[in-house]
Amino acid sequence: MAEKPWDGRFSEGTDKAVELFSSSIAFDKRLYEHDIRGSIAHSKMLAKTGVITEEEAALIEKGLQEVKADIENGNFEYKDSLEDIHMHIESALTEKLGDVAKKLHTARSRNDQVALDIRMYLRDVADAVIESLANLRKVITELADAHIDIQMAGYTHLQRAQPVLLSHHLMAYYEMFKRDQERFVDCKKRINVMPLGSAALAGTTYPIDRQMTADLLDFPAVSANSMDTVSDRDFMIEFLSAASICMMHFSRLSEELILWSSSEFGFIVISDAFTTGSSIMPQKKNPDIPELVRGKTGRVYGSLITLLTLMKSLPMAYNRDMQEDKPPLFDTVDTLGACIDIYSRMLPNIKFLKEGMGIATETGFINATDLADYLVTKGMPFREAHSVVGKSVAYALGKKAELHDLSLDELRQFSNLIGDDVYQFLSTEGIINRRTSAGGTATENVKKAIAEAFEVLNS
Amino acid sequence: MAEKPWDGRFSEGTDKAVELFSSSIAFDKRLYEHDIRGSIAHSKMLAKTGVITEEEAALIEKGLQEVKADIENGNFEYKDSLEDIHMHIESALTEKLGDVAKKLHTARSRNDQVALDIRMYLRDVADAVIESLANLRKVITELADAHIDIQMAGYTHLQRAQPVLLSHHLMAYYEMFKRDQERFVDCKKRINVMPLGSAALAGTTYPIDRQMTADLLDFPAVSANSMDTVSDRDFMIEFLSAASICMMHFSRLSEELILWSSSEFGFIVISDAFTTGSSIMPQKKNPDIPELVRGKTGRVYGSLITLLTLMKSLPMAYNRDMQEDKPPLFDTVDTLGACIDIYSRMLPNIKFLKEGMGIATETGFINATDLADYLVTKGMPFREAHSVVGKSVAYALGKKAELHDLSLDELRQFSNLIGDDVYQFLSTEGIINRRTSAGGTATENVKKAIAEAFEVLNS
Amino acid sequence: MAEKPWDGRFSEGTDKAVELFSSSIAFDKRLYEHDIRGSIAHSKMLAKTGVITEEEAALIEKGLQEVKADIENGNFEYKDSLEDIHMHIESALTEKLGDVAKKLHTARSRNDQVALDIRMYLRDVADAVIESLANLRKVITELADAHIDIQMAGYTHLQRAQPVLLSHHLMAYYEMFKRDQERFVDCKKRINVMPLGSAALAGTTYPIDRQMTADLLDFPAVSANSMDTVSDRDFMIEFLSAASICMMHFSRLSEELILWSSSEFGFIVISDAFTTGSSIMPQKKNPDIPELVRGKTGRVYGSLITLLTLMKSLPMAYNRDMQEDKPPLFDTVDTLGACIDIYSRMLPNIKFLKEGMGIATETGFINATDLADYLVTKGMPFREAHSVVGKSVAYALGKKAELHDLSLDELRQFSNLIGDDVYQFLSTEGIINRRTSAGGTATENVKKAIAEAFEVLNS
Amino acid sequence: MAEKPWDGRFSEGTDKAVELFSSSIAFDKRLYEHDIRGSIAHSKMLAKTGVITEEEAALIEKGLQEVKADIENGNFEYKDSLEDIHMHIESALTEKLGDVAKKLHTARSRNDQVALDIRMYLRDVADAVIESLANLRKVITELADAHIDIQMAGYTHLQRAQPVLLSHHLMAYYEMFKRDQERFVDCKKRINVMPLGSAALAGTTYPIDRQMTADLLDFPAVSANSMDTVSDRDFMIEFLSAASICMMHFSRLSEELILWSSSEFGFIVISDAFTTGSSIMPQKKNPDIPELVRGKTGRVYGSLITLLTLMKSLPMAYNRDMQEDKPPLFDTVDTLGACIDIYSRMLPNIKFLKEGMGIATETGFINATDLADYLVTKGMPFREAHSVVGKSVAYALGKKAELHDLSLDELRQFSNLIGDDVYQFLSTEGIINRRTSAGGTATENVKKAIAEAFEVLNS
Repeated sequence: MAEKPWDGRFSEGTDKAVELFSSSIAFDKRLYEHDIRGSIAHSKMLAKTGVITEEEAALIEKGLQEVKADIENGNFEYKDSLEDIHMHIESALTEKLGDVAKKLHTARSRNDQVALDIRMYLRDVADAVIESLANLRKVITELADAHIDIQMAGYTHLQRAQPVLLSHHLMAYYEMFKRDQERFVDCKKRINVMPLGSAALAGTTYPIDRQMTADLLDFPAVSANSMDTVSDRDFMIEFLSAASICMMHFSRLSEELILWSSSEFGFIVISDAFTTGSSIMPQKKNPDIPELVRGKTGRVYGSLITLLTLMKSLPMAYNRDMQEDKPPLFDTVDTLGACIDIYSRMLPNIKFLKEGMGIATETGFINATDLADYLVTKGMPFREAHSVVGKSVAYALGKKAELHDLSLDELRQFSNLIGDDVYQFLSTEGIINRRTSAGGTATENVKKAIAEAFEVLNS
Repeated sequence: MAEKPWDGRFSEGTDKAVELFSSSIAFDKRLYEHDIRGSIAHSKMLAKTGVITEEEAALIEKGLQEVKADIENGNFEYKDSLEDIHMHIESALTEKLGDVAKKLHTARSRNDQVALDIRMYLRDVADAVIESLANLRKVITELADAHIDIQMAGYTHLQRAQPVLLSHHLMAYYEMFKRDQERFVDCKKRINVMPLGSAALAGTTYPIDRQMTADLLDFPAVSANSMDTVSDRDFMIEFLSAASICMMHFSRLSEELILWSSSEFGFIVISDAFTTGSSIMPQKKNPDIPELVRGKTGRVYGSLITLLTLMKSLPMAYNRDMQEDKPPLFDTVDTLGACIDIYSRMLPNIKFLKEGMGIATETGFINATDLADYLVTKGMPFREAHSVVGKSVAYALGKKAELHDLSLDELRQFSNLIGDDVYQFLSTEGIINRRTSAGGTATENVKKAIAEAFEVLNS
Repeated sequence: MAEKPWDGRFSEGTDKAVELFSSSIAFDKRLYEHDIRGSIAHSKMLAKTGVITEEEAALIEKGLQEVKADIENGNFEYKDSLEDIHMHIESALTEKLGDVAKKLHTARSRNDQVALDIRMYLRDVADAVIESLANLRKVITELADAHIDIQMAGYTHLQRAQPVLLSHHLMAYYEMFKRDQERFVDCKKRINVMPLGSAALAGTTYPIDRQMTADLLDFPAVSANSMDTVSDRDFMIEFLSAASICMMHFSRLSEELILWSSSEFGFIVISDAFTTGSSIMPQKKNPDIPELVRGKTGRVYGSLITLLTLMKSLPMAYNRDMQEDKPPLFDTVDTLGACIDIYSRMLPNIKFLKEGMGIATETGFINATDLADYLVTKGMPFREAHSVVGKSVAYALGKKAELHDLSLDELRQFSNLIGDDVYQFLSTEGIINRRTSAGGTATENVKKAIAEAFEVLNS
Repeated sequence: MAEKPWDGRFSEGTDKAVELFSSSIAFDKRLYEHDIRGSIAHSKMLAKTGVITEEEAALIEKGLQEVKADIENGNFEYKDSLEDIHMHIESALTEKLGDVAKKLHTARSRNDQVALDIRMYLRDVADAVIESLANLRKVITELADAHIDIQMAGYTHLQRAQPVLLSHHLMAYYEMFKRDQERFVDCKKRINVMPLGSAALAGTTYPIDRQMTADLLDFPAVSANSMDTVSDRDFMIEFLSAASICMMHFSRLSEELILWSSSEFGFIVISDAFTTGSSIMPQKKNPDIPELVRGKTGRVYGSLITLLTLMKSLPMAYNRDMQEDKPPLFDTVDTLGACIDIYSRMLPNIKFLKEGMGIATETGFINATDLADYLVTKGMPFREAHSVVGKSVAYALGKKAELHDLSLDELRQFSNLIGDDVYQFLSTEGIINRRTSAGGTATENVKKAIAEAFEVLNS
């Protein structure tokens, strides 16, 4: 079977094939540091509670530090026959220390050990994601702050609807990433629970002190039920859900950047470092990064489904299926992290074309709603105002003009409530700045939102 | 085209077909009560801020209450031409009040109105789910309390591993549903934000007071950015994620109940009210409810994917695609709610067969680990203990006996450290009750967990 | 519990709640006609093989026809206590015929009966989808034929790349829907297999003739293994996969129509019957149908995941989970069917703006590639040609002109190989029509593709 | 940012970060062989059509063969700056040949080149999958043949329903994998279409002969529309769908093997090479391979969703998102291939415990249905027979006996139609062998199914 397009490693006979099929070292080796840190804490606790001696614990710690150094220096051989990172480290420790190494595995099993490692790893990831998202929000806020003077069309149904500030549009993404950050913070509460000591599934007969282990490893809580603990993957799925929503936001922002980069919109230019061109067509600047990010959205959605499917209908407690939890998780961690980082780098390298964006606010009777509002402020009932505006628009259309292109005389044909002040009222600036309802696009609102964002981010 | 297997309503010509295709009244009518409540608050706020008069507000409120009564009394006609519940109610109100009804829609648009309705609806749902899950946890705790004396095999890889208390096993599900409940509580924070006043996308020029609306409708917060607000569906996806994880837990519990109902396990009998039988085969009791619940898991996963897909790559702000958010949400609300309720009814109607469960703890050398532990407590190094146990097991296997069936003399062949007390040590009871590590299966632990659960649930 | 947001029907006590939870009549009633047709064939076969008498078969057929008439005339009561459509019909038949009705269920069980019904239903659906897709392809071809003279920019990365014919672009969708149709044809092979006679799971002891049943019901094949047959849902998943890919195509086409409807592109106007407007903003025409179709894509993807999840890990043979197969299937049938139909109606109602589309082909150095090709035809090596074009483009950019705006003298500065014929070469028409490689956008190619399509569709 | 848990490669500055983010060489290098084979055919065609000379084509072929040898001998450096496998090979070729190498890329673009490579790769994969599935079906048939004498309980709802032959149960999986194979055959029709010559999106102006390229590369068809061709990923999604259904079958078989391996069922022993044990508990044999395969099901489902999501709403033609198509595809190819292979190895290493399986057929009134059938054959109306059996069962239950344990006198209390022959009738063997309806479990049927399978597989 060596000639199969999938890798030919299986050709070496059954034993090897089974080893390869069931080994996880190729992906779980990234947990080495957390495994070692967890083992040191476990061994200290075992010493404090008298299960092993202080001398043994000291030896074990020293040995584990050496293993860690070996791994980091590349002096470490990975082999499928040793299956996973836990066995690799234990085996390396045994080579160094002999029998004392074997005491390390007292009062724990691989089931709770892997739960510990992955929780330690994922809370670090969560912290990093939270920090990166805060950084991204800062980048967005700075962008909004720097471009507070750019007006653009706000869209619904991808049709021009009402003029807004670009900064208002950008700050919408600030809100989305803020919620994402909150979800990761909430998720971390459920990651950050100490599982060790649940042993294979039923707890252990050794006089261990799980609270001490938790304290040594900075866990605020200890898990409550041993059977639940060794088969709980909720925190991973929750992480993947939060990541999926976050990627959905990136897909929306990416879609917009791709639209805005088109000749038809002509709103932005993404700097060369983040696009690819063509040796012949000088105008061609493909928005590769937004496209790739949009594409990677599917990858994270897929990983969420992978883990939900995996856990469906598994009886208690640990089942080997659960080993398959790591590839989708790690892939998501890498994908999400890379997307946040690349966007934080790219966003400041976008040039917003004030003129191009402005054009879209000046055509298409985008101010018709506001002419009606104007008449209402002059005392006309809303329904009547509607009708007046309808007629004005029809008249303007006939002249291939916009409402604000009509002379005062022309406008007053439709209602003599219209005065000189109407032009200011119909100006894009006027329209934007009258939308002062909380959360609306008025410049003062947006400036306040930016100021508050800076305050939150800097606190 | 009337003969298509999909419904023949399209045969009536294009206008009708478009109406049917784009109408949402068939599913969004369930929002009527929230729509009316939201409109009353909006109209009160408009009156307080002087946009309409107090008299108008009073008329509108009265009219809306009448519409509500009409709907609840069945005096209300639904038609696709009126598209959605908002237009149905507005149209009915206009019939009652005439022009004044039209003032209600001042300073809002359907984009923020639908966001308000769905958030009000979903926070009620979240509250109901939270309460139902608390009730389910109580049912589980009562079950655990009532069966504290039942021992069973704990499984990993569906292989008997170590004896545990049934109550310990049950309390693992208590923990899962507790986390689910926490997730819904966290999710509710992000549901419970007041969107009204964002208008179409940019805010409004009317001097509205969004905080007042929020207060009237018991929202603790007002949304921050109008463009984000009208296109935010995060809270729905988060709800669906939490629901998916919860259904995953149900699928696991269901799988176990199905296994336990089989002749091979013979652990439980689900009462007749929750099973179907066969008129001939008296032994046949199909565990239909757990099977259906397990099957419905897929439905909720699917809805999660539906909404994630829907939102992928949508530019800002509102797009009509978003109308499709409701069917998967409502289906999940109904499915999840029904599953929680039916389980809360069914669980107390399960008979646990103490004897059948006990048998599984007494065979298969399930106590071999503990013989090694015994020798360690007598001073033998663990590795040597291992070897002694290995030999004992081989000897017992040869006699087709279990370890605890061997005489003391037989056992002492392998180590004279073994004494009379070994039998107590190897008893299922001994094995269980020595696992006193926090979260372990010892009876005292489990009793404590039950007591704490009652305390939490009754507080 | 009556006050839950999910329906309050559960408040009526456990028996009722269980009935409601496990009933499928609300959705499987659409199978009534196939159920009756299948039962008539079954009863004829039972008579031919002597299991029942010809008289009994005649009575049963007459009775079933009456039940069918009752259902179609609305003289039929549905109740959750009768669970599903099969029991409803059997019960109605028994009311009419008494004991002889009970003979109908000889040599079959509900497990193979439901498999028969759903297969008969789905092959009808598949036929209708296949026909509808052929019709849609015809609509597209007619559109391509009618607009063979419209040139537009072809895009990659949503950047203008090379000019193409609109008809070429449209015919790309012809190809997609052609593949979709082929997939449904392939899928139908696996739907169209006769399951009846597999009984509960093991076959039956009655001397039935399954081939006769298959012949009576126009099935080309009889299923091979009774256990597989009662638990096979592959054909549904395969249908959902084909539907998902088809909806993906609709989502792409919808995205393009939405883009093209925007002011920025300005390529098309969808007729009023298929858009919604605004009473004030005359320019606002929201492309609701494409948006809704794009949104419904998620719904079909979700149903696919629902069924894949449902079937995961189910042991043989029938399990009650399988009852949950119908809601996602029926929802997909309705959604897909409605989308195909509405698009077939809408596409002819789109006005393509030749001028607007043309503009995009005349700017952005979209003909730079072809200037290099021109030089190659004149004998210049490709690399050198590249360089010449690069310089020309830089020169043109400096003048804010396009290549074809430069005078011959200006062009000859860069290479004296350039002659008068270059303008024809650089014209959009020239660029398009030189792309004569098989499948390329040259007008002659596209005309040929259209002609072949008509031939295939009319044959 | 070097300290992020996702890989620290991004710390090197923006240019490097963008390179890493957008590079695909890490995964697409597996296409090297197909890329080179495709390029050789392309260059031969270019020579035949006079676009390049025969000498140039010969040089290019020789150069590409050398590059291939370099890659296979490990003399090849991969670097993210060269982005993908196509550029790596072109760059290596240029190093060897200089300018002539650059002619290879005439009349093609990376858009159609990558389409060619992936189609060539995937049809090889499809062939290998088809062959592997045939092999697996052979393994299953051999197993069924070897164990034709083993009787077991057939289950519905995981409740014992009727006795069946183990071979009948196994042959149900034969049918499932047969359908899988058919789906891959159908899918291959749509993979096996030659895309090269579509160029960037619009075809090419060079006088190429796409049919010749197709002939050289053994493609039976040439793609019809250049824009469709460069953005068509249907064939990948279809492959992933077929793979998902196939993995669903594996998940079901795995579930059953896990159940059967449990102490409670005790139906099989999987040989040591495919299980893991425990150093202490001699009875513990964890069914790791079935568990891992069941877990990997989620992985393939996830990849399907990944690609469906990716393609949703992409406008034509090529978009960079599409680069993300390969990781889910390759992961599925590897996963599916490995699962088929490992099962083909493992199945023959399962010991079926005839006695254990037999026990389940002898208890639980599994023959009650057949006692009623017996009475019907003696002339009693079915309804009366039902009642007689009901009473007999109640009597037997009272004696804690099975029906076949009752004496003839005891049985004749209930009906004097019962004679000596009833015991043969009620025997498991009798029950099985009377189910002779086509596809039923009678031994003669199953033997025939096995014989036909061997015939098909050996032809």
